Amino acid sequence: MEKKVLNINGTNRTIIADPEASLADVLRRQLGLTGTKIGCNTAQCGACSVIMDGKVVRSCATKMKKVESGAEITTIEGIGTPDNLHPVQLAWMVHGAAQCGFCSPGFIVSTKALLDRNSSPTREDVRDWFQKHRNACRCTGYKPLVDAVMDAARLLRGEITREELEFKLPADGRVWGGKLPRPSAVAKVTGTCDYGADLGLKLPPDALQLALVQAEVSHANILSIDTSEAEKMPGVYKVVTHKDVKGKNRITGLITFPTNKGDGWDRPILCDKKVFQFGDAIAIVCADTIENARAAAGKVKVKLEELPAYMSAPAAMADDAIEIHPGTPNIYFEQKIAKGQDTKPVMDGAAFVVEDEFYVGRQPHLPMEPDVGFAYYDEEGRLTIHSKSIGIHLHHAMICPGLGVEPEKLRLVQNPAGGTFGYKFSPTIEALLGVACMATGRPVFLNFDYYQQIMYTGKRSPFFVKMKFGANKDGKVVAMETDWSVDHGPYSEFGDLLTVRGAQFMGAGYGIPNIRGIGRTVCTNHAWGSAFRAYGSPQSEFASEVLMDELAEKMGVDPLELRYKNVYRMGDTTPSGCPPDAYSLPELIDKIRPAYKAALEKAKAESTPQNKRGVGVSIGVYGCGLDGPDSSEVDVELTPDGVTVYSSWEDHGQGADMGCLATAHEGLRPLGIGPDKIKLVMNDTAVTPNSGPAGGSRSQVMTGQAVRIGCEMLVNAMKKADGTFRTYEQMVAENLPLRYAGKWVASTCTACDENGQGNPFPVYMYGVFLAEVEVDTATGKTRMAGMTCAADVGSIANRLVVDGQIYGGLVQGIGLALTEDFEDIKKHTNLIACGLPYAKDAPDKLDIIYVETPREHGPFGAAGVGELPLTSPHAAIINAIYNACGVRITQLPALPEKVKAGLAARAGA
Amino acid sequence: MEKKVLNINGTNRTIIADPEASLADVLRRQLGLTGTKIGCNTAQCGACSVIMDGKVVRSCATKMKKVESGAEITTIEGIGTPDNLHPVQLAWMVHGAAQCGFCSPGFIVSTKALLDRNSSPTREDVRDWFQKHRNACRCTGYKPLVDAVMDAARLLRGEITREELEFKLPADGRVWGGKLPRPSAVAKVTGTCDYGADLGLKLPPDALQLALVQAEVSHANILSIDTSEAEKMPGVYKVVTHKDVKGKNRITGLITFPTNKGDGWDRPILCDKKVFQFGDAIAIVCADTIENARAAAGKVKVKLEELPAYMSAPAAMADDAIEIHPGTPNIYFEQKIAKGQDTKPVMDGAAFVVEDEFYVGRQPHLPMEPDVGFAYYDEEGRLTIHSKSIGIHLHHAMICPGLGVEPEKLRLVQNPAGGTFGYKFSPTIEALLGVACMATGRPVFLNFDYYQQIMYTGKRSPFFVKMKFGANKDGKVVAMETDWSVDHGPYSEFGDLLTVRGAQFMGAGYGIPNIRGIGRTVCTNHAWGSAFRAYGSPQSEFASEVLMDELAEKMGVDPLELRYKNVYRMGDTTPSGCPPDAYSLPELIDKIRPAYKAALEKAKAESTPQNKRGVGVSIGVYGCGLDGPDSSEVDVELTPDGVTVYSSWEDHGQGADMGCLATAHEGLRPLGIGPDKIKLVMNDTAVTPNSGPAGGSRSQVMTGQAVRIGCEMLVNAMKKADGTFRTYEQMVAENLPLRYAGKWVASTCTACDENGQGNPFPVYMYGVFLAEVEVDTATGKTRMAGMTCAADVGSIANRLVVDGQIYGGLVQGIGLALTEDFEDIKKHTNLIACGLPYAKDAPDKLDIIYVETPREHGPFGAAGVGELPLTSPHAAIINAIYNACGVRITQLPALPEKVKAGLAARAGA
Repeated sequence: MEKKVLNINGTNRTIIADPEASLADVLRRQLGLTGTKIGCNTAQCGACSVIMDGKVVRSCATKMKKVESGAEITTIEGIGTPDNLHPVQLAWMVHGAAQCGFCSPGFIVSTKALLDRNSSPTREDVRDWFQKHRNACRCTGYKPLVDAVMDAARLLRGEITREELEFKLPADGRVWGGKLPRPSAVAKVTGTCDYGADLGLKLPPDALQLALVQAEVSHANILSIDTSEAEKMPGVYKVVTHKDVKGKNRITGLITFPTNKGDGWDRPILCDKKVFQFGDAIAIVCADTIENARAAAGKVKVKLEELPAYMSAPAAMADDAIEIHPGTPNIYFEQKIAKGQDTKPVMDGAAFVVEDEFYVGRQPHLPMEPDVGFAYYDEEGRLTIHSKSIGIHLHHAMICPGLGVEPEKLRLVQNPAGGTFGYKFSPTIEALLGVACMATGRPVFLNFDYYQQIMYTGKRSPFFVKMKFGANKDGKVVAMETDWSVDHGPYSEFGDLLTVRGAQFMGAGYGIPNIRGIGRTVCTNHAWGSAFRAYGSPQSEFASEVLMDELAEKMGVDPLELRYKNVYRMGDTTPSGCPPDAYSLPELIDKIRPAYKAALEKAKAESTPQNKRGVGVSIGVYGCGLDGPDSSEVDVELTPDGVTVYSSWEDHGQGADMGCLATAHEGLRPLGIGPDKIKLVMNDTAVTPNSGPAGGSRSQVMTGQAVRIGCEMLVNAMKKADGTFRTYEQMVAENLPLRYAGKWVASTCTACDENGQGNPFPVYMYGVFLAEVEVDTATGKTRMAGMTCAADVGSIANRLVVDGQIYGGLVQGIGLALTEDFEDIKKHTNLIACGLPYAKDAPDKLDIIYVETPREHGPFGAAGVGELPLTSPHAAIINAIYNACGVRITQLPALPEKVKAGLAARAGA
Repeated sequence: MEKKVLNINGTNRTIIADPEASLADVLRRQLGLTGTKIGCNTAQCGACSVIMDGKVVRSCATKMKKVESGAEITTIEGIGTPDNLHPVQLAWMVHGAAQCGFCSPGFIVSTKALLDRNSSPTREDVRDWFQKHRNACRCTGYKPLVDAVMDAARLLRGEITREELEFKLPADGRVWGGKLPRPSAVAKVTGTCDYGADLGLKLPPDALQLALVQAEVSHANILSIDTSEAEKMPGVYKVVTHKDVKGKNRITGLITFPTNKGDGWDRPILCDKKVFQFGDAIAIVCADTIENARAAAGKVKVKLEELPAYMSAPAAMADDAIEIHPGTPNIYFEQKIAKGQDTKPVMDGAAFVVEDEFYVGRQPHLPMEPDVGFAYYDEEGRLTIHSKSIGIHLHHAMICPGLGVEPEKLRLVQNPAGGTFGYKFSPTIEALLGVACMATGRPVFLNFDYYQQIMYTGKRSPFFVKMKFGANKDGKVVAMETDWSVDHGPYSEFGDLLTVRGAQFMGAGYGIPNIRGIGRTVCTNHAWGSAFRAYGSPQSEFASEVLMDELAEKMGVDPLELRYKNVYRMGDTTPSGCPPDAYSLPELIDKIRPAYKAALEKAKAESTPQNKRGVGVSIGVYGCGLDGPDSSEVDVELTPDGVTVYSSWEDHGQGADMGCLATAHEGLRPLGIGPDKIKLVMNDTAVTPNSGPAGGSRSQVMTGQAVRIGCEMLVNAMKKADGTFRTYEQMVAENLPLRYAGKWVASTCTACDENGQGNPFPVYMYGVFLAEVEVDTATGKTRMAGMTCAADVGSIANRLVVDGQIYGGLVQGIGLALTEDFEDIKKHTNLIACGLPYAKDAPDKLDIIYVETPREHGPFGAAGVGELPLTSPHAAIINAIYNACGVRITQLPALPEKVKAGLAARAGA
């Protein structure tokens, strides 16, 4: 231990620390300054940035022995406080720059240091600074951050006033459609938002720290697990194995379709008989400190009989492959699609036929915050599990039997989540925490490191797609044939549903009358497939959107105009055979066309022999909802202080609080109350009703409707004969109910049948993507020059949230197109290796064009938004690369070496 | 565990806590908000005050189950930050209202709530508020706090500006003599000053929590200690007993005088053979949490053979009393005094003779912060012990052999101390921490609760005094005879020195030519005697100052004028037979006389038959230094940024930092640097030289001199031939030394001889006290109407510090006179029972009159200050009670029942 005196946020603090400890760890664990977040813990994400003696340092990589006694350190807590926000913090709020908010303290601290040094940076300077200091953001696409820095600098230079920058409600007091910063923004920009790791540090002192013993092979039989040595290690309270699990020790996948050949009970909480993938949890060490827990985890001895690992769908589908789950075939689900007439004769008669094979791989989610949670017994003796779960009621059902606890004795709570993008649709840490808490009776805390985050959370499931279009001489696509194999990893949960998404979204956006195809879910030993933003559509629409360009090329027509000809118009139906809920694609194309033409001009003008510029487009469509008659429920209650809305509208970071608040405020407008009078109680199965999970862009639609209905019920109950409203006191005096359950069911919807036909979603989102790229032909590297998205997501609830969702989704699309992957488990082990886009990988030109078609089935006309921007932006980028240099990438990501190989092949051809 | 969402300092925080846990504990241990301090932990001190839903609550007594979800809580961290101080915080600084600072967050939070409710309180309103909310302060005497509140209210009302309130250096830049707030003030008023309990919470996560097994009897032989059951308790790492102590297991008292019959090795670290007093430590449980440690401590089985407990000096001096330390007589030291001629013939010839017996009891120190510390091995393998030690080098020597560690492998560090008033002259927790750290090899943390603070720290040692004055017909005291027995409890440390203080201070202030007397140190089983502010003089001077009033009464002269006649004038000598260093007492009396006369008039005018008012005076004298040729050393170093001063000027809370800074700044004035360029490195034996302990008002004199000399050495070295000064770079270029050791020795001093004669102190402090009281004759209760102190403490280094020391000492004198005691160990177990003065027990009229006689042997003319105000204010109060109602209290404290009994006796007589 070493004693140092450091000046932290303006006062001297004596610190006793291990010289080998990181500054981040000391700030957080010892000084309680949890505003400094730890993301990757390997200096790749900048969440832990602090200012030390005037320089931005990543505190996770700064060992205490390198911190000089007397050093001056500024953390987010020293930048400003909720009632004394620094201009950078204020700008961050009003630009919606804090989405999940996990990166915000690091960015704000970094920005402070930039502006201390350069009071008038250019946008490029800002991006250079963030790039240099590795400040990474996964939510915002970086644009709102740069906007915020520019405004903060203006305020600091005195060019604008604080009042000019601050958000003000419009004169009519309306929140809906405006730019009110989300309620959580103040906490996020001041470092006072406690995420799971922060709450974990703030648990009662008897909390046990957990470390996992994990498989280091991808497929094996377990012969024995010996915990005896580990149990004797210092500080160890208990080593938990499958033998300690009281229930079925399985997380059920809640099989959705009866034709699934599995039973959904294939996923162990703690491995008992087999290891199914690298990283599978085998034991949990519970100790007084995490260091002791980890040391003891290294002493657990696991004897394995290794089995052949099937690391892709084709490998697992091979004739000689053994059953990964004995008794269940590796191809455990199939979904046909049959719309209109048999496609064979139509293809035979088509003027143009194109076909190709496509592969969209294991995109990793890469949230800034690694998975984390804790569990304890609450005051009513309920096993209470806090996590990043984006489906608390869903996960309740999925883990309850496995744990062996009565449903009423299990409670799930969502912590503020530092980004999930869907991976938290799978309950993993939740079940592990439950087991450890039940086995020890003590509060337990488990925080994945970033390696665990990458290796032991689900990924986007690769689709191997074969697709064929037949078009008539006018370019109208008259038939589509498809074949897709979904590598879903070893666990079945929702694997059937994902495969159905192939049927629903291949060719989506186009009124293709005749479709035939088949998809299959394949069990493999690679990372389990979990939900990921736009679930199924990036794989499905990549195929149809690249193939559409191939058709345009074959026909010699402009790809945007070919799409214009084919997009949904009155009378067309979706691949599922039902009419779309809005016909806005022609208008979206009309609106984006000038930008498209300008981009083509610009590309032509700016291309050089080495740096070739190109432009590509794509259509994106996604449905809002889980599939079929989805539903949601919230409670709305009148209180002496205003109105409280109880919902399980989980937050990935997208802005659940703002969505709920804007919708409730709109529903309560007759009462004339301000947003500060609406209190949100969210995401705790013990106190908030089942609003369903936050996935498939369903929350704003389903839960938004439930909020609207609940508010209307309350407003109606308060209404007096003369049109005025009862006060709280009057409601009480008249003995009228104060709390109303708003329930909404997508009653017009039906699940798809065996032919993939049905009406699965009440509301869809529509978009057109325009990508501008520059390909360095010497290296094959693609640089993004711009992305534009024309979007119809219905009426907009909150402009900051919706803009932010689109910016962020677009940059995830850039990652998906160019860099992101998790194929090689030996190599793709950190953010950089996995291809996370940094500030300079995202273009500063990131434009949105809105068409707001009010949706019949959306609350106040709103659709969802989150999935749309990641449906097919990657296809537009790939099409742009082809436009630039003639190389057509059909197997993502379009790494420089692939493009370069394509260029070489063309040169050779 | 219960989950709640609380709005803390402006943002919502989710908290998982035991419903039975206190809010204070949750704020501190779980949320890391250590600005909220825990003092008594029983709602008696207000250090833990926070605002909850607009009301001040003591968070230590607020269980989490009583905190409603949604509650709004403001802690000191939410009031203001170092760069954004709230007006109350600013006012606190500029009024020197934060001395030790431990109570400051609670007071400031409480004040914020007061001013939120009442923007224009009167001084009485402020005192009522603090009284009602039990905000207790042991340092300031409350006056500066009320002053600060009044100014903060003015600023908040807009009657003064922030700039008007802020401290500004005078035009000449001089710090010396001014009101610069102490360097630690910002941290103290913002809750960012980390005291031992705060630092303990911020230790590395592997730190062990310690709980003591303590004796519950006062005297016993130990038959056996069985730790086996305790060792098996959850979370226990080790149970440490005397068998684990590597060294002599004794804290040496560093016997000062060869005539001491003990050897100084009487004090065990952990009891082995015997228990000597209630509370003695027998074992230390080291566990993962304090709860587990305490639970296990209850399982240690100690078999005892109880022995007779001698709970007072007379009891232990009885013929049949056994030796408490076998082999050493219970009376283990005697000190004679013999000055001038034999007193018997002088007494026989005296015109007036008075004699009486006096008792000043076990005044408890009652700091707001209970004892606390921690230990670890530093980066060089040194056993490093942090505590409230006010004598780090002294304690190093006292505990090193007992621990059995090589001196160079032991390091002591002082933490910011929340008040000591002298009790930390005894190293207790230090040795226990050292033993536990050595036995476990892990960082260890021990925090006394307030019961332990009271029961297991030293107390002021009672003096049983017999005294006789003989005066000539003019009232000149010509002879004094004394006999005093000092109950020093079971441990000898400095017990001899304390007894010598009786010889030095009985009759101090008066030029009594002939003195004979004897004092003795007695070993008992009551609380061990430790240093307490004014060490020995409150006991000694109480006798002579009350007896002086008895003489005045007998003579029928005014007691102030009688003193005027007797105080030191040129040619007089102290009881030790040497000339005083200043003859300011006549001037002090001259200056206080108008106030005295006015007080007499006022008392006469305002007395009623029931509420009788009275006025009393006393003289106070104390020496600055340890005794004999005391010395100190500091280092002064030129750095690129300014000058660094290295000193072991320990801080009780008195303002060591300000004393050091003011003295250094004055010494460095030729360089013309601002105080912000002077860096203080303090109180760490590994890096700061031996400046001696902070006791006996020696620091400003001894260490101040060392600072002055060091600064002068540096200034001289920097001086160029032309009278200008070399820069740092020039010093380096010329290869001149940068660091200078300032050393000072009180070379004119000699220790007292067997007759109590010598020249023990280079500098003295002189004061006159004026007390105004009102005695309710129905109840016997004395209310303070005013206290005035005329003080000559030499040149004043810092007015805020010196004012604050005097105010605080006066109110401790009020406590000593009227309420404070630790006689009954079953009853005197908490702050209230021990008689701590609250805001309304201190008068708002608390005046100081300065005479600044520059001292030859003080740096820049300064004397010390801390002890002076507690030398004899209680005597003035007792004299005032007599003046009011004719009851002379000679056995302190003057509880209402004693006064009432006195009134009854008079009525009966």
